[in-house]
Amino acid sequence: MGTKLIIDTDPGVDDAFAIALAARSADVDLLGVTTVFGNVPLATTTSNARRLLQLCDRPDVPVAAGASRPLLYRELHRSSTVHGSDGLSGHAASLPDATRPLEDSDAVSLMVSLLEASDEPVTIAPIGPLTNIAALLAAHPGVRSKIARIVLMGGAITLGNSTAVSEFNIWADPDAARRVIAEDDVPCVMVPLDLTHRCAVDSTWLAKLAASGPVGQALNSFTPDYLAHYRQVLGYEGIVLHDAVAVAEAIRPGILRAETYPVDIDSGLGPTRGMTIVDRRAVPNRPTGRPVEVAVDTELDVLREFVLSRLAGGR
Amino acid sequence: MGTKLIIDTDPGVDDAFAIALAARSADVDLLGVTTVFGNVPLATTTSNARRLLQLCDRPDVPVAAGASRPLLYRELHRSSTVHGSDGLSGHAASLPDATRPLEDSDAVSLMVSLLEASDEPVTIAPIGPLTNIAALLAAHPGVRSKIARIVLMGGAITLGNSTAVSEFNIWADPDAARRVIAEDDVPCVMVPLDLTHRCAVDSTWLAKLAASGPVGQALNSFTPDYLAHYRQVLGYEGIVLHDAVAVAEAIRPGILRAETYPVDIDSGLGPTRGMTIVDRRAVPNRPTGRPVEVAVDTELDVLREFVLSRLAGGR
Amino acid sequence: MGTKLIIDTDPGVDDAFAIALAARSADVDLLGVTTVFGNVPLATTTSNARRLLQLCDRPDVPVAAGASRPLLYRELHRSSTVHGSDGLSGHAASLPDATRPLEDSDAVSLMVSLLEASDEPVTIAPIGPLTNIAALLAAHPGVRSKIARIVLMGGAITLGNSTAVSEFNIWADPDAARRVIAEDDVPCVMVPLDLTHRCAVDSTWLAKLAASGPVGQALNSFTPDYLAHYRQVLGYEGIVLHDAVAVAEAIRPGILRAETYPVDIDSGLGPTRGMTIVDRRAVPNRPTGRPVEVAVDTELDVLREFVLSRLAGGR
Amino acid sequence: MGTKLIIDTDPGVDDAFAIALAARSADVDLLGVTTVFGNVPLATTTSNARRLLQLCDRPDVPVAAGASRPLLYRELHRSSTVHGSDGLSGHAASLPDATRPLEDSDAVSLMVSLLEASDEPVTIAPIGPLTNIAALLAAHPGVRSKIARIVLMGGAITLGNSTAVSEFNIWADPDAARRVIAEDDVPCVMVPLDLTHRCAVDSTWLAKLAASGPVGQALNSFTPDYLAHYRQVLGYEGIVLHDAVAVAEAIRPGILRAETYPVDIDSGLGPTRGMTIVDRRAVPNRPTGRPVEVAVDTELDVLREFVLSRLAGGR
Repeated sequence: MGTKLIIDTDPGVDDAFAIALAARSADVDLLGVTTVFGNVPLATTTSNARRLLQLCDRPDVPVAAGASRPLLYRELHRSSTVHGSDGLSGHAASLPDATRPLEDSDAVSLMVSLLEASDEPVTIAPIGPLTNIAALLAAHPGVRSKIARIVLMGGAITLGNSTAVSEFNIWADPDAARRVIAEDDVPCVMVPLDLTHRCAVDSTWLAKLAASGPVGQALNSFTPDYLAHYRQVLGYEGIVLHDAVAVAEAIRPGILRAETYPVDIDSGLGPTRGMTIVDRRAVPNRPTGRPVEVAVDTELDVLREFVLSRLAGGR
Repeated sequence: MGTKLIIDTDPGVDDAFAIALAARSADVDLLGVTTVFGNVPLATTTSNARRLLQLCDRPDVPVAAGASRPLLYRELHRSSTVHGSDGLSGHAASLPDATRPLEDSDAVSLMVSLLEASDEPVTIAPIGPLTNIAALLAAHPGVRSKIARIVLMGGAITLGNSTAVSEFNIWADPDAARRVIAEDDVPCVMVPLDLTHRCAVDSTWLAKLAASGPVGQALNSFTPDYLAHYRQVLGYEGIVLHDAVAVAEAIRPGILRAETYPVDIDSGLGPTRGMTIVDRRAVPNRPTGRPVEVAVDTELDVLREFVLSRLAGGR
Repeated sequence: MGTKLIIDTDPGVDDAFAIALAARSADVDLLGVTTVFGNVPLATTTSNARRLLQLCDRPDVPVAAGASRPLLYRELHRSSTVHGSDGLSGHAASLPDATRPLEDSDAVSLMVSLLEASDEPVTIAPIGPLTNIAALLAAHPGVRSKIARIVLMGGAITLGNSTAVSEFNIWADPDAARRVIAEDDVPCVMVPLDLTHRCAVDSTWLAKLAASGPVGQALNSFTPDYLAHYRQVLGYEGIVLHDAVAVAEAIRPGILRAETYPVDIDSGLGPTRGMTIVDRRAVPNRPTGRPVEVAVDTELDVLREFVLSRLAGGR
Repeated sequence: MGTKLIIDTDPGVDDAFAIALAARSADVDLLGVTTVFGNVPLATTTSNARRLLQLCDRPDVPVAAGASRPLLYRELHRSSTVHGSDGLSGHAASLPDATRPLEDSDAVSLMVSLLEASDEPVTIAPIGPLTNIAALLAAHPGVRSKIARIVLMGGAITLGNSTAVSEFNIWADPDAARRVIAEDDVPCVMVPLDLTHRCAVDSTWLAKLAASGPVGQALNSFTPDYLAHYRQVLGYEGIVLHDAVAVAEAIRPGILRAETYPVDIDSGLGPTRGMTIVDRRAVPNRPTGRPVEVAVDTELDVLREFVLSRLAGGR
């Protein structure tokens, strides 16, 4: 019945759009959602994920909670100025309560169960820090064979957001990112800030979304703090869909154009901590990391329309 | 029926003694043995662990294979000059074949099953690199409540063996060690090189072991390469029991005397990589890491006799 | 009589062009040339610098030898595949012997003497590793007041050449670069690879240079190895003038267009060692380093013509 | 007329004793004193050094000010809780004004002049952060031949004071220490905390000093804050002579017993920053750094009497 998918997430406004995108796509078999600390603490991301699935009328999708801290601890970094203290600009409480209980098992156990039970390879879309994914690969190396590919939102080719060179999801757990992206051999597509920043949507797009029905209306209601932040970055009234861009690629392979480059991650304690080093040199010497598919382009209007139609269209 | 125990191991000569110590102790409920890369590659450590349990007539103990590489990869370090290329001075092949098949599940899954199934807290004795344990804690944070304590062989207070300041088990995966020892809150006893080096046994002890029966004879047969190495270090004919010292504490709590100090691990890329920083200052300022029990002393003859009697005595 | 200038250099083909550019400019008061290890070892860079000044008929310019190793040692990195083992594609021996003896004093002492003796601030153009300049600032902090500005060739905004993100001059001594560029308060203009790569000259330009007289002919004779290297990078027959671009700015302030950004240097041991982190974010948070002028553009044909006319025109 | 000596210092109580020890020794040719930031800021250490020489009736000794910051900056660390905010327990103001003006030249220039002017090799005793010495060696490599040996107070074999493993002088500028101790080839004797802590003096010794005359009386007047600090460390009323122990060895070679070990310095950003790694293993593999003489023992009463007699005896 379509792409088998697990989303690993820390909602977060753009995570909310990404979850809804998958949850409302009839051609996606959303096997489960796992949560991780990140934009806001784990308890909040977990609650948000469950309520968002309820909003999308998907009580069939199990949710399990994962890591509350990075693989290796230095400091916890939050994005609450961007997403609001509840991760959804203060509107999390307006979401419906989840009727489906949280899974007893942890995020990694749920992923293992879903992967082992699946008769075909599963796509994993991590759209928060990569802690759960690194733990999955380190603890259960045998599951690799059941992973079709990992399509992740994270990293930056040129400019970062958390620091000059580091994007938030990588910066929040650089060691996990190094394990998943630069050291493992599981197929990996990285969707960096450079591309997601271009995939912004404006107020017209948001108005259409808001008018499309209760889900669209709710998603739009999460955007005020996010709009305030991106007004500065974009220079106009709009938001960036970051995580939804990665999920779009996960469920519609090829909607993004990717190129293969050696990618390494710096997890040291200096000024490049959390950097994704994408070696685009024509004549590389001393490349480090491993070759990874990096999404570099898309037809912007096609992508925006794809996301809008799924979010608006119901399932 | 006594201490519930899981051993995580990379045999290795002293690991062999440590496994036999637990396997032949009637007051120990050896729930399982998990394996990790380390002294030799994973396939070899796994084969050795299975055959050693067979030697000890313990086909009831499940064995599962774990990590073949560190949590975060830099370089793989081996100790084959100390333990021989098969980990047992070339005598691994003389061990009986294991009648019990290797578990289908991985090491972390076996640990989770055993912990969840146990009606009382379980002691874990990691005597190799801490990769499996770090992965367990990162992937399945809920199992902490079922762990009585982690009694690990590793680290050094003053002088290292792999480098000036680093002991092999920590050096082989410093990031995993940092997670388990310095960052987690699971109860932890560290048995460092400083103490294990003092727990050496001489040729008289080894002769008694060899004369005690087929298990003792086999254990003694593994020692030639190890003897050659330790002759240089000790200055006399003898070997160091490293891992068996930690397992002695795991199964006979209090046989070692421990003191509590803040312990941190360096996992940087400089000359102290893999160092366990034990802050023994009388008036500490800026302590880092977390308070951990560090074994600093034992009654040497009591310990040697305890280990010998168990190895020799059968179950 | 024009800009007072000291060049600190490791010739190198492009250094040769840069030295000749200053040496043959009538409006430049070339006070001295100091040498440093880099493209080739110190003895070679020193010999090359002296012979190049002789070629340009400038025995009045004193030369002093400086650092033969980085401020803090890790490994010595050479570029002899690019510049040839003698730094000048094997043609160093064809240069005239220097009639002026090498200074007895070291590079830093010569710089201090020249700075103290000058009645107006002096421009320093470092076009090799920044070891001498860092040592000057660390040993003799009082000389800052006599430095008009430091115009250096080094660093990269996007892609490096020694590694994915690091340019050779910075990579060869990242600690010295951190001191000079990111930590000191001496006025600093950084001319990065991004701009110098655009300032390539083609075979027509080189032919004009060769035809201009004995100096032009000699300079052109140094280019074969360099041409072979840059054919791959540029995709056509040409070379990149790197160091001469910085010296052009040093002697004709404003010929390059610079923007001010926070710049930091990574001198850690990971994959970003030697990176110049140029924080170009519109809305920076957590900038590190210090604001530095970074040359980002120039009128390419004006620059090429300026360099050619000076090299060809004699003094 | 005896040992030619330059002291590089950041007074500091124990520095005061060390300066007086050299200044009042008739068999020492104290060529100059250079100052560095450290226990207190540079302006204070410089003023203290000048006044201390005046106290000792040595207006013939030139003083020059050096580095006000580490070679590579991270954070400035002070010891004012140990030495008082003026470095001398609040009694700096009671010292006589210096009649000799501060040198115009900087510390490194003074060292170069003194070394070059000396007809025999000179001993340098750095008893603060090693910034000036690293700058000297980096800027003026030729002076090495005029340095008899560097006898420095700094480092720790086992326990540190600034951190678990780092001693203050090294910790305050680990990069400079790495250059001088671990990377250079200048003869070097390191006098670590392990030995200096044993060279404590008690209240009887201090009473004799105080009764010996105006210099002894003044030195004793500096000790209140220092006594308060060391009461905790020593467990009795006494102080540690740290810097004076190194100067004793500088002027009476052999009064300390030294052993040669490979010594490396960690200048990374992790928990071992500023550690002196002294590789005392019997069978070292992978030693890093370079062989250095490390002072490990002395006849304590002989040393205490030597220092007291010099301080008390006048010149």
